[in-house]
Amino acid sequence: MRRLFISFEGGEGAGKSTQMQMLYSFLAARGFDVVSVRDPGTTNVSEKIRNILKDKATGDISARVEALLYFAARAQMVDEIVRPALDEGKVVITDRFAHSTYVYQGYAGGMDVGNLAQINDFATKGFLPNLTFYLQISPENGLKRKAAQQDLDRIEAKGLEYHKQISAGYDKIAADDESGRIITIDATLPAEEIHNKIVSHIEKILI
Amino acid sequence: MRRLFISFEGGEGAGKSTQMQMLYSFLAARGFDVVSVRDPGTTNVSEKIRNILKDKATGDISARVEALLYFAARAQMVDEIVRPALDEGKVVITDRFAHSTYVYQGYAGGMDVGNLAQINDFATKGFLPNLTFYLQISPENGLKRKAAQQDLDRIEAKGLEYHKQISAGYDKIAADDESGRIITIDATLPAEEIHNKIVSHIEKILI
Repeated sequence: MRRLFISFEGGEGAGKSTQMQMLYSFLAARGFDVVSVRDPGTTNVSEKIRNILKDKATGDISARVEALLYFAARAQMVDEIVRPALDEGKVVITDRFAHSTYVYQGYAGGMDVGNLAQINDFATKGFLPNLTFYLQISPENGLKRKAAQQDLDRIEAKGLEYHKQISAGYDKIAADDESGRIITIDATLPAEEIHNKIVSHIEKILI
Repeated sequence: MRRLFISFEGGEGAGKSTQMQMLYSFLAARGFDVVSVRDPGTTNVSEKIRNILKDKATGDISARVEALLYFAARAQMVDEIVRPALDEGKVVITDRFAHSTYVYQGYAGGMDVGNLAQINDFATKGFLPNLTFYLQISPENGLKRKAAQQDLDRIEAKGLEYHKQISAGYDKIAADDESGRIITIDATLPAEEIHNKIVSHIEKILI
């Protein structure tokens, strides 16, 4: 049986959480043992790192420092949770992974994406998702949705210009992708319709 | 005026703190504006990272994750404190720096030291101390001294075998050094004698 490790990517308010839950239920109903994780987070130390990154009291830290913290959180999550689960034949779905760092700290944060990819390889030992669903939404729409849901955290509160760079970064990664592993989906479609598209792509792999 | 950035290195119980304080007083009495830092730590976010690394409740994390956390803490400390202080003509002394990562996560933790040096360069933009004082002590002696002072933290509690690797790692770095920037001093000498040796090396630079 082949490994199945699926990541969800997109700007704020793209609806990743909703789609994660719908996919989890779908796969569980099909009899798969599914593990749902979030990056950064999930392990003890990764959640502590997440708190530092999200906490407004952390204040200004550089994209360089942010990237190193994301890599540390990801390294522990891969070693402790993701790789062992896949080894046991489970399906793993993650809310964000390496592409988020390339977009947020790279394209939007000004760090060289090649450098980030090298350190990501060090952190994860070259570990990649089989499939990435990029939920595409305009930054204006995404921020509006997110602000309606909850108070913005340190990252979300960075303003529209920043989030435009996020959106452009994701679009560039998706456009440059030659692996066929990144699937772009219009995040303004009804949730059920997005879910059906996601499932159709996963079924191609599961066959 | 040339920049002066001095690091102290050594295993547990080598007496770094005592020597840091003595050097601080000496330099201040000579009229220097001295900034004393500790790595990991000193900045807001770096102290939070330090807490994660030192806290026994963090549990087992890999040398890979430890290294990335040390790099994140160091990156912020260099950007926020060390480089600006040196730019203003201050002298900066630090309790640990890059060599600690090479020894603890590299030689003792099993990570490739070349890889660690690359990521350290990314984290610090190639920033190095002008002078490093390595306080050399046997692991048995060092641990005994440390245990007499206080409860051992997560790193210190790793046992004698680990600390023997630390000691051997420092010895190797000092032996391999071709820059002349690493000064090895016998940490079992009286504190005043160690201090005098340190001062004599610094005076060569200050002239």
